Amino acid sequence: MSDVDLSELIADLPAQMVVTDPDILAGYRQDRAQDPDAGTPLALIRPTTTAEVQTAVRWCAANKVPLITRGAGTSLSGGSTAVDGAVMISTEKMREFTIDTATRTAVVQPGLLNAEVKAAAAANGLWYPPDPSSFEICSIGGNVATNAGGLCCVKYGMTTDYVLGLQVVLADGRVIRLGGKQLKDSAGLSLVKLFVGSEGLLGIVTEVTLRLLPPQASACTVVGTFASVREASEAVLAITARIRPAMLEFMDGVSINAVEDMLRMGLDREAGALLVAQSDAPGPAGVAEVAIIREAFESNGAADVFDTDDPAEGEAFTAARRAAIPAVEKLGSLLLEDVGVPLPALPDLVDGVAAIAAGNRVMISVIAHAGDGNTHPLIVFDPDDADEHDRAQRAFGQVMDLAISLGGTITGEHGVGRLKKGWLPDQLGPDVMELTATIKHALDPEGLLNPGVLL
Amino acid sequence: MSDVDLSELIADLPAQMVVTDPDILAGYRQDRAQDPDAGTPLALIRPTTTAEVQTAVRWCAANKVPLITRGAGTSLSGGSTAVDGAVMISTEKMREFTIDTATRTAVVQPGLLNAEVKAAAAANGLWYPPDPSSFEICSIGGNVATNAGGLCCVKYGMTTDYVLGLQVVLADGRVIRLGGKQLKDSAGLSLVKLFVGSEGLLGIVTEVTLRLLPPQASACTVVGTFASVREASEAVLAITARIRPAMLEFMDGVSINAVEDMLRMGLDREAGALLVAQSDAPGPAGVAEVAIIREAFESNGAADVFDTDDPAEGEAFTAARRAAIPAVEKLGSLLLEDVGVPLPALPDLVDGVAAIAAGNRVMISVIAHAGDGNTHPLIVFDPDDADEHDRAQRAFGQVMDLAISLGGTITGEHGVGRLKKGWLPDQLGPDVMELTATIKHALDPEGLLNPGVLL
Repeated sequence: MSDVDLSELIADLPAQMVVTDPDILAGYRQDRAQDPDAGTPLALIRPTTTAEVQTAVRWCAANKVPLITRGAGTSLSGGSTAVDGAVMISTEKMREFTIDTATRTAVVQPGLLNAEVKAAAAANGLWYPPDPSSFEICSIGGNVATNAGGLCCVKYGMTTDYVLGLQVVLADGRVIRLGGKQLKDSAGLSLVKLFVGSEGLLGIVTEVTLRLLPPQASACTVVGTFASVREASEAVLAITARIRPAMLEFMDGVSINAVEDMLRMGLDREAGALLVAQSDAPGPAGVAEVAIIREAFESNGAADVFDTDDPAEGEAFTAARRAAIPAVEKLGSLLLEDVGVPLPALPDLVDGVAAIAAGNRVMISVIAHAGDGNTHPLIVFDPDDADEHDRAQRAFGQVMDLAISLGGTITGEHGVGRLKKGWLPDQLGPDVMELTATIKHALDPEGLLNPGVLL
Repeated sequence: MSDVDLSELIADLPAQMVVTDPDILAGYRQDRAQDPDAGTPLALIRPTTTAEVQTAVRWCAANKVPLITRGAGTSLSGGSTAVDGAVMISTEKMREFTIDTATRTAVVQPGLLNAEVKAAAAANGLWYPPDPSSFEICSIGGNVATNAGGLCCVKYGMTTDYVLGLQVVLADGRVIRLGGKQLKDSAGLSLVKLFVGSEGLLGIVTEVTLRLLPPQASACTVVGTFASVREASEAVLAITARIRPAMLEFMDGVSINAVEDMLRMGLDREAGALLVAQSDAPGPAGVAEVAIIREAFESNGAADVFDTDDPAEGEAFTAARRAAIPAVEKLGSLLLEDVGVPLPALPDLVDGVAAIAAGNRVMISVIAHAGDGNTHPLIVFDPDDADEHDRAQRAFGQVMDLAISLGGTITGEHGVGRLKKGWLPDQLGPDVMELTATIKHALDPEGLLNPGVLL
């Protein structure tokens, strides 16, 4: 790769924008998935405008140089891992936004963090619902690339449900606009939806038009602890059979203890599982939903069922659930799963994960957006123990095999990235893989955009 | 086309399934758009299984015969108009369905009517929200093909928001399954979403997995009449700036009178416009929403504001709004628009349509899903008056030009079909048109699927 001449790219972009300092590049090789096979990029660009992205894409196309787009680098599936000789485009400086209260939309550059979009909306009396657990550190561009989810999805949907329009730089450098501020639009193919969740394979998103909602009503929170994971997952089914809660989150005993070690908030260390549910239905409807949740908890053996309409108290439990990944991370290195199943299979998934943990002699802590069947088994291993590392890797694959066998998915919200692509054909089958490759090839014939992801 | 030998197709399908009787074929040439340029198909097939569809597609692929898929034939944009020499696949006999209450999903064949999906869900205590005005006569397959909307979209979204999985026969006859019953799935490209709204260009949908919701809460209905269309559209903005109503529908004076002629329900024939709004927020929240709607009506000059929590009374006004198209149809032939704009442009759109009507000396009645900016200007003309017909056609194009100039869309929910494709490039631009053609070509290189639509 040393024979690639960057001078034209350097000349066409603002001074200092093309970074080749190895120390800086080193910080962009990996994302939060910490893929040990990450390559070394040729250069890093931190553009501020669509035109600068376009310049970089055109140069890459002309020189057949691969191009990796990176948001905040919080991918848990290696979606923005560097490959050798690639140009990395970091969107971290693309942070402009406008809020339009008349159309209830936000137009944002991709580098804005999810939390910043939420804050900008809130400052205008509006609400941007999608809330990945990493919402304070993940970018909206990455959310679009993976169709990110979060805790509110069970009632309020995924990122794709809020994307009304996109500006995209295609592989050949052309800039297109798709959709816009209108709420309904059936003109042409659903290209906005195709680009959402495309993990950087089809183009580079440089602007997103997001639908905003009126503010969420104040929520009541119900917390219950269970002796077993099985009982908690049965309680989940009892709730979702009757209502759409605004949140329905699950933690197992390992994560309860890890969070309690970190936050010291008085969680029951003896519990096998904890559920945190919310209802944001107003007035008597909310009271009725809370009663349904309590009944589902209690009839499935919950002890210490607790409910509160105090937002701060409720937020403490939500924060505890969000803290689970960093808390369990203190126990060792993590392989982070994102498997989802149709809801009735949730107890079987949870039981099966326990069997996989036992069979491979590794610790697997399960946390879940239980209300939509999306779980995050966290496989904990000692990175210095090669044998345990191998067993963890084996368990990682077995959990995905299990989800597929239960009619589920290897990824509910994190994307396939580089770490899970080995399992994608088992889920999708050869014909859908070929269709995926056909579309990729049609839009990026040279295969320069985020090579190694998905396919 | 007379040299095409159907014997192999006839032999490979059940007896009598391949229909070539010209009298029967004549009934399948046009859809509700009544395109005078409809062709004459070679044959009609009414399959009951995916395998039979596959047989037909393979035969068409081998013989390079174009293939038009038709649901209930209610397309208002000529999406299922026959072309000369094509095989028509009518899905009218693909009517099987199952409801899974545990996952709150329905798995349906495409020929089931929207109303039948709703009824099957309701029989199981569940709700399928999308509700095109034609819900009693349109098929779910057609709804998927056009990403159909309806009255509830303003709060509950479009068809695409409810499609979790699809079975699709591709142009070469392969059958694929996309998605499934899991609520969250980020594995691979968003192919389910790409096929929704693809108007039969990319494949033939033979099974749909739909997300269902718990039943809608009982709604309160607010009705108000306005002296002018402008005042009513200002009232719409005053409502949507504050809440998400469950319905917010608009009729102008022409449609009020046409409906009153048909239904004799006591609508104010002097009114310039009528709004019908609903809130399904429970308890005090619903009371608050009704108050906001009333206030928005009254502060924009509404007379006779009326609200009711009686579902039957509310349904009478909803039915009146749904009856507007057939009622106006009694005044002459219709050219039916489906233009949408970002909400603040709604008054300008409505004013502009009035100017176009005056400029072309034709009657244009405007009805609208006003809460999401999606309007249906109905251009009325005497089909026996050639000059008026020409003026109506000119107005038809000018309304779409106006919507595009206001940053809107030529179709919010009906699809482009054959009647609006001339305007699509003006909305999407040459690069997006080329991208559309690229994807179409990648999935259907011979261009056999629904030729003449969109492109």
